[in-house]
Amino acid sequence: MTITIRDVADAAGVSTATVSRALRGLANVDEQTRARVQQVAVDLDYVISPSASRLASGRTGSIGVVTPYIARWFFATVLSGVEGVLQNAGMDLLLMSVSSADGHLRLPPAPRLRRRVDAVLAISLPPDDPQLTEVLALGMPTSLIGTQRAGVPGVTIDDVQAGRMATQHLINLGHTSIGVIGGYQVDALHTAEHDRYRGYVQAMQTANLPVDRNRETYGYFTVTGGEQAMTQLLTHPNRPTAVFVMSDEMAFGAIRAMRAHGLTPGKDISIVGVDNHDLAELLDLSTVAQPVADMGRIAAESLLVQLRTGAANSGLESLQLPTQLIVRGSTAPVA
Amino acid sequence: MTITIRDVADAAGVSTATVSRALRGLANVDEQTRARVQQVAVDLDYVISPSASRLASGRTGSIGVVTPYIARWFFATVLSGVEGVLQNAGMDLLLMSVSSADGHLRLPPAPRLRRRVDAVLAISLPPDDPQLTEVLALGMPTSLIGTQRAGVPGVTIDDVQAGRMATQHLINLGHTSIGVIGGYQVDALHTAEHDRYRGYVQAMQTANLPVDRNRETYGYFTVTGGEQAMTQLLTHPNRPTAVFVMSDEMAFGAIRAMRAHGLTPGKDISIVGVDNHDLAELLDLSTVAQPVADMGRIAAESLLVQLRTGAANSGLESLQLPTQLIVRGSTAPVA
Repeated sequence: MTITIRDVADAAGVSTATVSRALRGLANVDEQTRARVQQVAVDLDYVISPSASRLASGRTGSIGVVTPYIARWFFATVLSGVEGVLQNAGMDLLLMSVSSADGHLRLPPAPRLRRRVDAVLAISLPPDDPQLTEVLALGMPTSLIGTQRAGVPGVTIDDVQAGRMATQHLINLGHTSIGVIGGYQVDALHTAEHDRYRGYVQAMQTANLPVDRNRETYGYFTVTGGEQAMTQLLTHPNRPTAVFVMSDEMAFGAIRAMRAHGLTPGKDISIVGVDNHDLAELLDLSTVAQPVADMGRIAAESLLVQLRTGAANSGLESLQLPTQLIVRGSTAPVA
Repeated sequence: MTITIRDVADAAGVSTATVSRALRGLANVDEQTRARVQQVAVDLDYVISPSASRLASGRTGSIGVVTPYIARWFFATVLSGVEGVLQNAGMDLLLMSVSSADGHLRLPPAPRLRRRVDAVLAISLPPDDPQLTEVLALGMPTSLIGTQRAGVPGVTIDDVQAGRMATQHLINLGHTSIGVIGGYQVDALHTAEHDRYRGYVQAMQTANLPVDRNRETYGYFTVTGGEQAMTQLLTHPNRPTAVFVMSDEMAFGAIRAMRAHGLTPGKDISIVGVDNHDLAELLDLSTVAQPVADMGRIAAESLLVQLRTGAANSGLESLQLPTQLIVRGSTAPVA
């Protein structure tokens, strides 16, 4: 026996039109009804014909997620938050990496997204990235995570405040010679990195402390990169007594570099990261915690609202989630 | 001007039929030609109409990846390997989590995969999981990662050998009282956990050492779970001098538990993990390294071969990749 949309409508106590709208993710269905219809469809093993659904709605039922990395803590954690929300909404998640860091050839995402997805979530793409511009030119609802671009809704933390908070914590402990480990280049505009650097500079200047570019290095947001960057700072003739590291994974590498030089975090040099990575507590790392899974969840929710209301990239502001300084053993008063 | 398939064919120096086959991922196109056609299509910004392509081929151009977790090291690393291969092949990756660990309602994957994907990759689903049985009943090419099921191709490590190697290493260091931290229950059949436990038992029995079920605890494959499991072992009246921990993340938690009790890994109790997680070196953890990204890549490649040859779940055997014991400071001769 073939299950029809009529069977689902009868079992859920709604009209066939409502079943169709609910399973296609369209507007004008309240969330309770949508959930009930979805559950009935699952119970009866009914799947709305994707092609019929697409023809009827002009929609694919899919959301594209464009990310530079998958196997890094921040990105995997954001992705996990996004996936939960999309699956709850009955939407498919089409995953697309744009990094060639793993040696794979990468195709520009925009042509691959066109006609394949209804909307796009872009994680930590620089706002001036031409690939992002091409994606936005597709005219689909789009939401950013981790970066801001005028006119495009998104979710970030207040990265300026995060940088200021981390640096101020070191200043409060009496440190005056404070280094920085960034990712690639702190002067890229409107990225998390740039804003965290601005926060660092603000805190230093407010305290009348010198911003010494000889004490700035880059760790490419990896453990190994952080280790190399810290090694560079350690061999500096006038090395800092404290370092603001722009991600926990780089800070983990920095701890390794310190150990290799017989130095103890906190005791010899204070370091503070950003993230509150799962292992930050184990490694006794002070850090500015950011709600990473929440960023993914909220960005996905806002994208679904855009889809349902038909408001493409309008009316929804960029949202900033709160951060929190967590003090552990890696930061201590200057010796 | 609209770019047609004729334009792509002319620019690539092949027939329109070859362009169509290449962009739809069908057989009978050699890899070089496929790559050239894809590059030309990207350069000209040509996208084969998905609906036309699907009508013509009966294919969706998508592969479903079903996984219990996203934001855990093993799963994110496998996923990263899979994504690179699928993107190179011009296939879309549809990501679907089946865990409700994050509090999200999860729908059974099979009805959501039907008519949406051409093939399925399942990561670490237990072979007797009813959800996996339903997915296999769809009759699509399917490949498993991390578990084995008769008649279904897949990629694993030799988990029995991994467990034996880790335990033998502890025995060689003179330990006779050796505990185990598993994931959920070591007697689930044909899972990585079960096989690693079998390897542990083999090594213990070969050395005429007692297998004491009072020294077995479970850590749910998380850092926090590993910490709790180790705390339990530490408060055991006759506590072990060495512990085999079935994943590095649980071992990280075990290290935290030891520190909380004023104990030093290696010096007071030896522990060895499985994975070679990015942070295992930093935490000086001895471990059995498994090639996680390779497992993802190879499983994805084998699935593409199945798709191109039309050989659904036949002819391709389950493949076992080699592992390697990496000895660091967390294991040392018994005091």
